[in-house]
Amino acid sequence: MKIVLGENAYGKNAVNLTKITRHADYHELKQVSVNISLQGDFGPAHTTGDNTKILPTDTMKNTVYVLAKENFTSSIEDFGIFLANHFKKNNPQVSQVKIEITEHLWSRIIAEGIAHKHSYISGGNEKHTATILLFNDDITVTSGIKDLLILKTTDSAFKDYIKDEYTTLKETNDRILSTQCQANWIYYSSQLNFTTLYNEIRETILLTFANHKSLSVQHTLYAMGEKVLQEINSVKEISFIMPNKHHVLFNLEQFGMENNNEVFIATDEPYGYITGTVTRE
Amino acid sequence: MKIVLGENAYGKNAVNLTKITRHADYHELKQVSVNISLQGDFGPAHTTGDNTKILPTDTMKNTVYVLAKENFTSSIEDFGIFLANHFKKNNPQVSQVKIEITEHLWSRIIAEGIAHKHSYISGGNEKHTATILLFNDDITVTSGIKDLLILKTTDSAFKDYIKDEYTTLKETNDRILSTQCQANWIYYSSQLNFTTLYNEIRETILLTFANHKSLSVQHTLYAMGEKVLQEINSVKEISFIMPNKHHVLFNLEQFGMENNNEVFIATDEPYGYITGTVTRE
Amino acid sequence: MKIVLGENAYGKNAVNLTKITRHADYHELKQVSVNISLQGDFGPAHTTGDNTKILPTDTMKNTVYVLAKENFTSSIEDFGIFLANHFKKNNPQVSQVKIEITEHLWSRIIAEGIAHKHSYISGGNEKHTATILLFNDDITVTSGIKDLLILKTTDSAFKDYIKDEYTTLKETNDRILSTQCQANWIYYSSQLNFTTLYNEIRETILLTFANHKSLSVQHTLYAMGEKVLQEINSVKEISFIMPNKHHVLFNLEQFGMENNNEVFIATDEPYGYITGTVTRE
Amino acid sequence: MKIVLGENAYGKNAVNLTKITRHADYHELKQVSVNISLQGDFGPAHTTGDNTKILPTDTMKNTVYVLAKENFTSSIEDFGIFLANHFKKNNPQVSQVKIEITEHLWSRIIAEGIAHKHSYISGGNEKHTATILLFNDDITVTSGIKDLLILKTTDSAFKDYIKDEYTTLKETNDRILSTQCQANWIYYSSQLNFTTLYNEIRETILLTFANHKSLSVQHTLYAMGEKVLQEINSVKEISFIMPNKHHVLFNLEQFGMENNNEVFIATDEPYGYITGTVTRE
Repeated sequence: MKIVLGENAYGKNAVNLTKITRHADYHELKQVSVNISLQGDFGPAHTTGDNTKILPTDTMKNTVYVLAKENFTSSIEDFGIFLANHFKKNNPQVSQVKIEITEHLWSRIIAEGIAHKHSYISGGNEKHTATILLFNDDITVTSGIKDLLILKTTDSAFKDYIKDEYTTLKETNDRILSTQCQANWIYYSSQLNFTTLYNEIRETILLTFANHKSLSVQHTLYAMGEKVLQEINSVKEISFIMPNKHHVLFNLEQFGMENNNEVFIATDEPYGYITGTVTRE
Repeated sequence: MKIVLGENAYGKNAVNLTKITRHADYHELKQVSVNISLQGDFGPAHTTGDNTKILPTDTMKNTVYVLAKENFTSSIEDFGIFLANHFKKNNPQVSQVKIEITEHLWSRIIAEGIAHKHSYISGGNEKHTATILLFNDDITVTSGIKDLLILKTTDSAFKDYIKDEYTTLKETNDRILSTQCQANWIYYSSQLNFTTLYNEIRETILLTFANHKSLSVQHTLYAMGEKVLQEINSVKEISFIMPNKHHVLFNLEQFGMENNNEVFIATDEPYGYITGTVTRE
Repeated sequence: MKIVLGENAYGKNAVNLTKITRHADYHELKQVSVNISLQGDFGPAHTTGDNTKILPTDTMKNTVYVLAKENFTSSIEDFGIFLANHFKKNNPQVSQVKIEITEHLWSRIIAEGIAHKHSYISGGNEKHTATILLFNDDITVTSGIKDLLILKTTDSAFKDYIKDEYTTLKETNDRILSTQCQANWIYYSSQLNFTTLYNEIRETILLTFANHKSLSVQHTLYAMGEKVLQEINSVKEISFIMPNKHHVLFNLEQFGMENNNEVFIATDEPYGYITGTVTRE
Repeated sequence: MKIVLGENAYGKNAVNLTKITRHADYHELKQVSVNISLQGDFGPAHTTGDNTKILPTDTMKNTVYVLAKENFTSSIEDFGIFLANHFKKNNPQVSQVKIEITEHLWSRIIAEGIAHKHSYISGGNEKHTATILLFNDDITVTSGIKDLLILKTTDSAFKDYIKDEYTTLKETNDRILSTQCQANWIYYSSQLNFTTLYNEIRETILLTFANHKSLSVQHTLYAMGEKVLQEINSVKEISFIMPNKHHVLFNLEQFGMENNNEVFIATDEPYGYITGTVTRE
C-alpha cells in the first residue's frame, strides 16, 4: 500500500486584536482573538517542501489587522465572513477557509450611575464566539457562548438511574446544578443581525436554565436547546457542552450535625461531561 | 556553624467551599477558597519527625467545613477572623495563624427584569480576598480585589522618560491603559462592616481609574490609592499590583494606511509590572 | 419542522488514578487520567428526564478504580480495551463506548548511578495517550503522544512562499523550528504489544525530526508520518498537530550589532497551527 | 495624617529569550524568561506624573536582548549579575535592582545512542531559577529549582499527630509522598561556579528525598535542607516550598476487596502546603 497525504490544514491561531472606534459620545471597544485555517492544494508543500502555494501564516496575521481597520465595524460574525471571503477570493488553491473568532467581553464602567465614556471593566470569562466555514461557495455561520458559568441552588434532582455493583451515589431530590456551559448554534443564513440574535439566544438559555425543574443535566440541556429552537427561527440546530461542576455535600453527620443542603465541597475533577445537540427534522 | 531550622509554616490550601443560605425570598450563594497556615513550635516535627504538636492539614480542612455551617454568615473577613481565633485558641503550640479567603463572585440571573430566586451566573475572574493574620493577640485584617481587569481607551500618556542607547519606545499622548489590577488594603480594626467598606473601596478605585488623566501606570496607581485613603478612614494603607497589559499599535503605515489609535495588538508577554503602596504618616 | 435530539454523549472525565505494583526489586508507578464517554439510547433522559437507562458518571468513576486493581497490569491501551468492553457488556442500551487515557510519565530517580527502587521524578509535560472506540463490536485503538516539545536550532528553512500586498515576512534559510507536537496513530489491531510499539514510534518521530532538512513545518510533519508508516506495519495512519512555536530574531541591527541567528524572542501568540494526516491507500 | 507613597517598584516581566551558541561540534541552546525590577527615587513619577527618572520597561526589555549577545555565555546567575550591575551603574536614581531568571531546560535528542548536534527535547516542567538582588553595593545570589515533581511509593509514614473533635484522617505507616517541590538557596558569594553547584545541590536534594525514611513532609524537608548545608559550603541557607500532592487510597473495601496500597485517587485540591528554611547559626 502506498503512503499518501490525508486530510490537512494550516493557519494562524491567536491573532489578538483590540479595536477602538471613537464615537462622538463614547469609545467603543472590541477585543477578539482570531484563528484562520485553510485547506486546499497543499500536497507538494508536504511531500517535497514546495511552498509556492503556501500563504504564510504571518501574512494571515497581517491581513487580519489591516482588514480590521475598515471592515470590523459590527459583529464578529460579519467580520469573520469578510475575512473568509477575502482569503478564498485571493487564494484559488484554497478549497475551504475556517475563521474562528472569540470575543472577550467588556462593559463600560458605571461611574456615579452612568456608563463612562471611555473606561471599561472586563465582562469576565464568558466569551462570544463565531465560526465561519466557507467551503467552495457554501458558507456556514456558527455562533456560540463559551465559559458561561451558571449555577442553581435548587430545582435539580437526580434519581431513578441504574444501580449496579459499583454504585455508591445516593439519589437526591435537591442538589446544586452547576456547569461551565458552552453552546454553539448554526444559523440558516449568513445575512442576519447577529448581535441581536446573540443577545436573544443568550437570554433564552439563561432564562430556561434558571426556571427549569431539572431531572438531570441532559434534561436541562435539552430544555435549553428546545426553547432556543422554538423561539429563534434563524437557528437550525444548537449543541451544548455541559461539564457537571460537582458540588458534594460535606458529611456533617460524622460530627453530629445535620447538613440541610447548606455546606458543599466544590470539586474540579473528576467531572461529568455531558454533550448534546438539539436539531430540527 | 550549626545547622538549624529557620522560618517555617504549614497548613492547607484550596479548601473549596460553597455555602447556600435559604432565605425566605431567595437563596444566598457564597463560594470561597480557604487557605490556613500555622506557625509555632514545630521544630521537633522537622528535626526528629515528632508529630505530637502537628494538627493535620486534613483536620484543618474538616474544621473549615464544620465551622462554616454556623459561622460563615456574613463577610469572608468575619469568617476568617472566626477561623483564626478557633485555631489559635485550640492550639497553644501555635504563635501565628494566617487565614486567606478568596471569594468567587456570583450574581443572580436577571430573568425578565428581576433577579431570579435561586439561579446564578458567575461574576467573572474578579475576586474578593481577605487575609487575617493573628499573631499572639494582634489581629490584622487585609482585604483585597484580585484580577480586576480594567482598561481605558484614552486619557493615558507616557512621555518625558529617560532615553538611552537602547531606547526604541516612542512617546505618546494617547495610548490604551489596561491592567489586571490587584489591590490589598489594611484596616485599622477587625470590627468593621467589611462588606460595605469593600463596596465603597471598589467603587472608589473604579471611579478614579475611569476619570484619571494618566501620565503613567505609577501616576494612576498613586491617584487610586490616595483617593481611597482620603475617602475611607478605616483604611491604614493600600497596595497595588498593576501589570501593564500592553496594547501595541499595529503598523498600518507599512501598508499605506494610517492608524489613528484604532487597531492594536493585544500582548501578554512581556509585560510591565508596577507595584506600589500608598500609606499614611 | 419538529424539534428532536441529535447526537449526544455523556460520561466522566478526569478520573485521576495512581497505581503502584510492588515488584520484588522495585515499585512500578502508573499515573493516568481516564475519560469515559457513552452513546446510546438516551433520548428519554433528555426529553422527559427519564434516567432509567442512565449509568451515573459517579459509577463510571468507581468502576475505573475497582477494575484497575486486577486489570491495569500492562499498557494503557490494554486497560482501555478492558474498560470499554466492561461498559459495553453491562449496558445493552449503549451503542458506543469511548475510553480516553492520558498517562503522565515518571522515571525512577537515578541515585548514585542506579535507578532507585521506589522514588520517582516526573517525566515532564509529555504524555502517552490512548483512545479506545468500541462501536457495536468494532474496536479501534488510537495511541498518541501529547505535548512533545521539540526544537531544532538549524536545518530549517522557509522560502518561495506566496507574496502579496500584506507580506512582511522575510525568507530564511536558517531558522529555529520548534513545536509542541501532538501525534495520534491508529492501529490495525487491538491485540498488539502496545508498549513496544509506542516506544518504537516515539523514537522514529524524534529521530526523523532531528535529522530532517526542513523546508516547512508541513514538510517535516509529512516526513515524520511517512517514516512511521514505513517502519511500523501495525500503524494504519498517523495524524499530527504541530503548532509553530515562533522564535523571532531580535533586531540587533538597530543598535549597530549583527544577529547571526543567536538571539531570539520566544513568542507564544499568535502561533502557526499546522495539522495533517499521513495514511495508506 | 498625611498620605504618602510607601514601598514601590517597577520593571518588566517575562522577557522571553532564546539564545543559540554555535559550537564546532554542537549547538548550545538556552531558553530563559527574565524579570527586571527597580526600586529608587520614583516618588515624583507617582505623585505628579514626572517621568524624568523613569527608565521605560520597554528599554529594559531591549537591554536584555542586546546584552545577551555578548554576555549570556555561561550560567543564568552570571548573566543576572551582569544585568543587575548594568542597570545599577547606568541609573543613579536606582537603589535596588532585582533580576529574576527562569531557565527552561532542554536536552539534546538522543538519536541512535548519541546526543544530536542541534535537535532538542524539552526537559519538562522543572526549571532552574536565579534571583540577583543588588542593593546599593551588596549583591545577593539566590538560586533555585522550581516545579520539581517527585514521588516516593513507600518509606513515608504519618502518625502520632494531634487528634481533636474534627479529626477523621487515619494514621498510616506507608503512604505515597509526592510534592511539586520548589527550593531556593542563598550563596555566600557572587563569584562561584554556579552551574557545578546547581547540579550538586539538585543531586543532593533528589538523593535525600529518595532515601529518606519520612515521618512527615516537614521531616523530609528538613533532611533535604540539612544535607545540602552539610555538603555544600557555599550555601548559607536553603528554603523549600513543598505542597503535598495527596494520593488518597480508594475505598475498595466497600466492594469487598482489599486495597494493599495499590490503587489511589490522585487529587489536586485541597493540598497541604509546607514551607521551611534550613540555615546556619
